[in-house]
Amino acid sequence: MAQARATVETAAAESRRSGRVREILGWYGSDNPGTLTNLARLMNHGRLAGTGRFVILPVDQGFEHGPARSFAANPAGYDPRYHFELALAAGCNAYAAPLGFIETGAAEFAGDIPLILKLNNSDSLYSGSDPCPAITGSVDEALRLGCSAIGFTIYPASAQRNQMYGEIRELTEEAKRKGLAVVVWSYPRGSSISKDGETAIDVVAYAAQIACQLGAHIVKVKPPTAHIEQAAAKKVYEKERIPVGTLAERIRHVVQSAFGGRRIVIFSGGEAKETSAIFDEVRAIRDGGGFGSIIGRNSFQRPRGEAIEFLGQVMDIYAGTAK
Amino acid sequence: MAQARATVETAAAESRRSGRVREILGWYGSDNPGTLTNLARLMNHGRLAGTGRFVILPVDQGFEHGPARSFAANPAGYDPRYHFELALAAGCNAYAAPLGFIETGAAEFAGDIPLILKLNNSDSLYSGSDPCPAITGSVDEALRLGCSAIGFTIYPASAQRNQMYGEIRELTEEAKRKGLAVVVWSYPRGSSISKDGETAIDVVAYAAQIACQLGAHIVKVKPPTAHIEQAAAKKVYEKERIPVGTLAERIRHVVQSAFGGRRIVIFSGGEAKETSAIFDEVRAIRDGGGFGSIIGRNSFQRPRGEAIEFLGQVMDIYAGTAK
Amino acid sequence: MAQARATVETAAAESRRSGRVREILGWYGSDNPGTLTNLARLMNHGRLAGTGRFVILPVDQGFEHGPARSFAANPAGYDPRYHFELALAAGCNAYAAPLGFIETGAAEFAGDIPLILKLNNSDSLYSGSDPCPAITGSVDEALRLGCSAIGFTIYPASAQRNQMYGEIRELTEEAKRKGLAVVVWSYPRGSSISKDGETAIDVVAYAAQIACQLGAHIVKVKPPTAHIEQAAAKKVYEKERIPVGTLAERIRHVVQSAFGGRRIVIFSGGEAKETSAIFDEVRAIRDGGGFGSIIGRNSFQRPRGEAIEFLGQVMDIYAGTAK
Amino acid sequence: MAQARATVETAAAESRRSGRVREILGWYGSDNPGTLTNLARLMNHGRLAGTGRFVILPVDQGFEHGPARSFAANPAGYDPRYHFELALAAGCNAYAAPLGFIETGAAEFAGDIPLILKLNNSDSLYSGSDPCPAITGSVDEALRLGCSAIGFTIYPASAQRNQMYGEIRELTEEAKRKGLAVVVWSYPRGSSISKDGETAIDVVAYAAQIACQLGAHIVKVKPPTAHIEQAAAKKVYEKERIPVGTLAERIRHVVQSAFGGRRIVIFSGGEAKETSAIFDEVRAIRDGGGFGSIIGRNSFQRPRGEAIEFLGQVMDIYAGTAK
Amino acid sequence: MAQARATVETAAAESRRSGRVREILGWYGSDNPGTLTNLARLMNHGRLAGTGRFVILPVDQGFEHGPARSFAANPAGYDPRYHFELALAAGCNAYAAPLGFIETGAAEFAGDIPLILKLNNSDSLYSGSDPCPAITGSVDEALRLGCSAIGFTIYPASAQRNQMYGEIRELTEEAKRKGLAVVVWSYPRGSSISKDGETAIDVVAYAAQIACQLGAHIVKVKPPTAHIEQAAAKKVYEKERIPVGTLAERIRHVVQSAFGGRRIVIFSGGEAKETSAIFDEVRAIRDGGGFGSIIGRNSFQRPRGEAIEFLGQVMDIYAGTAK
Repeated sequence: MAQARATVETAAAESRRSGRVREILGWYGSDNPGTLTNLARLMNHGRLAGTGRFVILPVDQGFEHGPARSFAANPAGYDPRYHFELALAAGCNAYAAPLGFIETGAAEFAGDIPLILKLNNSDSLYSGSDPCPAITGSVDEALRLGCSAIGFTIYPASAQRNQMYGEIRELTEEAKRKGLAVVVWSYPRGSSISKDGETAIDVVAYAAQIACQLGAHIVKVKPPTAHIEQAAAKKVYEKERIPVGTLAERIRHVVQSAFGGRRIVIFSGGEAKETSAIFDEVRAIRDGGGFGSIIGRNSFQRPRGEAIEFLGQVMDIYAGTAK
Repeated sequence: MAQARATVETAAAESRRSGRVREILGWYGSDNPGTLTNLARLMNHGRLAGTGRFVILPVDQGFEHGPARSFAANPAGYDPRYHFELALAAGCNAYAAPLGFIETGAAEFAGDIPLILKLNNSDSLYSGSDPCPAITGSVDEALRLGCSAIGFTIYPASAQRNQMYGEIRELTEEAKRKGLAVVVWSYPRGSSISKDGETAIDVVAYAAQIACQLGAHIVKVKPPTAHIEQAAAKKVYEKERIPVGTLAERIRHVVQSAFGGRRIVIFSGGEAKETSAIFDEVRAIRDGGGFGSIIGRNSFQRPRGEAIEFLGQVMDIYAGTAK
Repeated sequence: MAQARATVETAAAESRRSGRVREILGWYGSDNPGTLTNLARLMNHGRLAGTGRFVILPVDQGFEHGPARSFAANPAGYDPRYHFELALAAGCNAYAAPLGFIETGAAEFAGDIPLILKLNNSDSLYSGSDPCPAITGSVDEALRLGCSAIGFTIYPASAQRNQMYGEIRELTEEAKRKGLAVVVWSYPRGSSISKDGETAIDVVAYAAQIACQLGAHIVKVKPPTAHIEQAAAKKVYEKERIPVGTLAERIRHVVQSAFGGRRIVIFSGGEAKETSAIFDEVRAIRDGGGFGSIIGRNSFQRPRGEAIEFLGQVMDIYAGTAK
Repeated sequence: MAQARATVETAAAESRRSGRVREILGWYGSDNPGTLTNLARLMNHGRLAGTGRFVILPVDQGFEHGPARSFAANPAGYDPRYHFELALAAGCNAYAAPLGFIETGAAEFAGDIPLILKLNNSDSLYSGSDPCPAITGSVDEALRLGCSAIGFTIYPASAQRNQMYGEIRELTEEAKRKGLAVVVWSYPRGSSISKDGETAIDVVAYAAQIACQLGAHIVKVKPPTAHIEQAAAKKVYEKERIPVGTLAERIRHVVQSAFGGRRIVIFSGGEAKETSAIFDEVRAIRDGGGFGSIIGRNSFQRPRGEAIEFLGQVMDIYAGTAK
Repeated sequence: MAQARATVETAAAESRRSGRVREILGWYGSDNPGTLTNLARLMNHGRLAGTGRFVILPVDQGFEHGPARSFAANPAGYDPRYHFELALAAGCNAYAAPLGFIETGAAEFAGDIPLILKLNNSDSLYSGSDPCPAITGSVDEALRLGCSAIGFTIYPASAQRNQMYGEIRELTEEAKRKGLAVVVWSYPRGSSISKDGETAIDVVAYAAQIACQLGAHIVKVKPPTAHIEQAAAKKVYEKERIPVGTLAERIRHVVQSAFGGRRIVIFSGGEAKETSAIFDEVRAIRDGGGFGSIIGRNSFQRPRGEAIEFLGQVMDIYAGTAK
């Protein structure tokens, strides 16, 4: 029998496509095989399959900023199916969107690409100083639509943060029981923080920590600046000489702040900017140990061909096949 | 925008790896995208990915026939993880087993291969003339363990058939709501049928029809013989001159009986037999338009190397790369 | 950070009391940390703590055989608290009993010894050829009473086996969700098996397999004889030359039949017999790779002092400190 | 029979490791054996096992103060597993943390140390005058993760206190039904109290009373100063000449205020300070009849070796083996 | 503080009306204070208040035997309120009846006497060899009607026993959670036992054990005869020389069989017989350590005055004021 076991172990080891995927799954020891399976699906799809790196296409801007601001630059994007196809053609790990967008293409693209159902969203017809998104989907809807994960935005620093934390807590418990993964967008924003503070290194690192503590498997934050927002934090960064001079150093600090590197942290592309600037940012994320990018507007607002080439170059950087 | 749409359609079409998978998914118009996604997963994995053909490894014999009868010939198989690895290494579309076997490997092999949780099983320590399996799993367990489908056996011709039909009805409704696929093993057996009748062409075709009517996405039956069991059926087969002389003809009739070919029908390998006989059978299944095979004992009771070669040859036949 | 991680890993490894306990927990990859914690509790208590071996005291005989037959030989045992104290004093891993017995001592002995709430029981005021126990407890009662595990008896070979399999399926799903471990007593008994067949090697191995497939963490079977009950099995045992001549060989085969040794299998002491015969049996269980014994009547029907000495000797055999 | 009973009682008494643990459990007569079992687990683990004294390691600072402020001083602490190991190596009674931290190590350290899942938490990216933490976990999550207790913070004196009291009421009812213990952090804070008032003797004693009235099994408060905040209280303290001159006297008064000493009251270490000052404080807590300390930053912000030595000295003071 | 505690303890001790009631409540350590309160109510009412002895008036004969057989002898008994008043006037501990009888008087006699709602009942318009009563009430109905306990009949030895055991299991869990006491009538009856066996000493002792194991607080059985029904039991009674010659000895054995005397066991009066015979029986119950009697027909079929005198004499025997 000892022999039989050895055979299984050797053979199993050989058959694994990626030790890195296994290593990452090993960080989620409290999760059931269903959730591990969906995390693996996210890591085993697209051009970065098996690398443990991510490029995700998110398209919630139609809800968040309105259709013209989102899609007029490249009108193909008014059709939700455009984004499924773009994510697929570009070789993204996954496509993330709110209920309506996912519903429109989920049957047609069933099985083609892992989906993330964004369960809350803010529109900009109303705006206050302390944002709180609306719940726009459910875990059962994610199952109905064949999604691998739920997505959720929290706004730490908002007066309404507790509302969001309580919502994601409930959704996380349910999603994990039903075998889904949980992706949390953690964007500090609200009346108790400055505009610069939203991307301050101390604040972004803190935002990553909060998302992890709330049970996120994958955390999305913004690339941090060298600004330090909170006085109490500033003292520590100076005393401990935490290196935050370069973006790569700051990324490394954010990844460390996400449970010593044992949670997947990915970074948003932020507002539209020059392509070369984005590539520099991606290199810094890679060098700092970041797990990838989630790139919306910079992808779907370009013509399809350009977008695919652009995303391909981002993936090449993460894959180490471009510098 | 019309232009935009055209772009989407062209691009989407191009990006599809397999028109055949799309075609098959098109038969299941009442199913939600979650179920379609899991059906697609079954069709997009392994060596037959994208062909619409199936070779599935089922290992419920430990429960059905006992451990020694199942695994003594190749003792590596006592360890449930052996079968995950075998299915994976051989390039099967999926691996099917009862709760305990799936539980033992589901975390270790998370995301490596689509899983089918067998939700009912019979043991052979008790036997009666009218079999009825025990319920041994649930749809929620399938989600917890990351399975793509549930599996269920019905025994038409058993006095207890209605019990089974009622159970699969409930499970099917729940599985479809939660985005899983449903595989039904339909094996006529019981006091109102002869031993020969169990594989009679009229009975097997009828068994396929019943499973489809109960809502199965994938139906598994035994390869039928030319025997016709029921007098009322015999009259029709003769009158209408339904061709059932060759196995390929009988397979074609069974596939036709499964909603005019709009349901996936696969065939069991049955008891261990000579390899060349199995290949002949597989060729007939292929030629008759069958969708594939589910091969248990003939796979895992051989030494691993032999089993992989054997399954590879079966897949070659289905893929059209062997004759 | 790499350094920090290394520190954690080294330190964590050092602090583990027992690599064997960790190894065994590693077999249960689909279970949540709650269930793993309770499995660890069972393995980390008493004289065999940390060895991965078990001696459990079960006292359901009051229900199963009536009070006088159970307790008249040692009347102290009429009081349920006697058995908590005996299990504790003797250094057993756990104490198992039905609801009423557990309720009587659970508060007084809270935290002193891991408890297993037996959730079904048969009485012998009614007897039929095909036994089916009554449900006498629940998972929530186990939580209320501070138990680490639920216990459940199945009678494979009974015409009513499916009833029992269905019940344990539901209870297992609930227990695992709520962080409890599951112990299954698997005793073939019923109209389709002979009296000798109840302990036949093929039948006992099969019974272990069934319990594992139903999701048991710990399986209890009877020590098997060399008799082979089923004709179909006999052929295989002979053809594959499975060694079943000595009890140790038979134990090894049963353990192998429990998922290649990746499930905990323990053995009942059976009917009262001479002490030296029991010790011989225990040595064979140990030598065959069995995980331990569950000894009821042979313990609590002796005077307390004798019982403690007797159980101590059994533990010494398992611990390797006696031969 | 009288004899049999006497035997049980004598033997049971002998086998108890600690009369003090029994005595304390006796204070919780309304709790079910499940909750008593978990309270016993907290008291029977680590270097202070059996003494009825506690040293608990809490690590919620990542959530409460942000990652750099919490872990930069000793970067090993960014990895949640560090703290499980530290608590274990130092011989603490238990480890308390929010969901994400517990999830990361619960499977790896299953059964090694009692866990307390902190069910609400505040972050400091938002701050208002009347704090109210977010709900970040649930009783069912505590069961899933194998925890012995839930933890919850209330802020008496906050305008939002009733929100918190209502939440803990519901959670307490559920936790007690499901056999868990309840630890309440009671920190007066908010717009109706001065900064000095937060640790005033009358306020701390009142905070302990409130937590007990809400059903806490274990109450955590801050070491009180001699300041008296409320005028109405001041009159009584003076009239009744309640001795509050020394810390030991104040501790005694707080313990008395926690139901005449029939609830477990432990004290926080507060902000980082000189080690000798902490030892003095611990001696006063011990001398005043306090049940122990919950020491976070003063433990995990030191290098591991130092931390273990430091905690060991604290435990020696409580154990009476140091003065 | 030590002084304060002592004061509380002394005062509490003084205020207890009956050490015996406290002692008995101490046997139910797993029960919540609500259930203890209701148990105390049963023990603290009527002429036997504080003695730990019981005389209960049950009137379910209208349902069980029909109205004329039950009430024609003393037509006042057709009115349900008669029995409330009789129980009250006679000084019984409690009055037990089915839903309709309780509903008719519960408001009028609210607070006058503890009530037991009988939750299942058999009628004699249908009779089979294996009886199973109908569920005729619920725990919530017991609360609505102000009852202190639920009552339930099981028929061990009936082929349908498992149905009853499963029902009482569920009801017991609910009743205990909601703070009610549970009284189980345990009457062996059915196809696997002889008529004489129904009151055989081994069978009655076993019936008491089963009720206790199912979680009953109070068990009602019939006074046993010296007959021994089961061969396996007979051997033990003879070998261990269990004294069963006199009724007092048999009562003692039954009480011992009810968890070593740690459960309340009361005895039915059985069929109408001569008054002196009843008194003899009551003396034997008392001398054997039985806790009391439940006397229906022998009470309410006599004229009211006679009944009150009769019951008074029974109580005097239990109280020790008559011999």
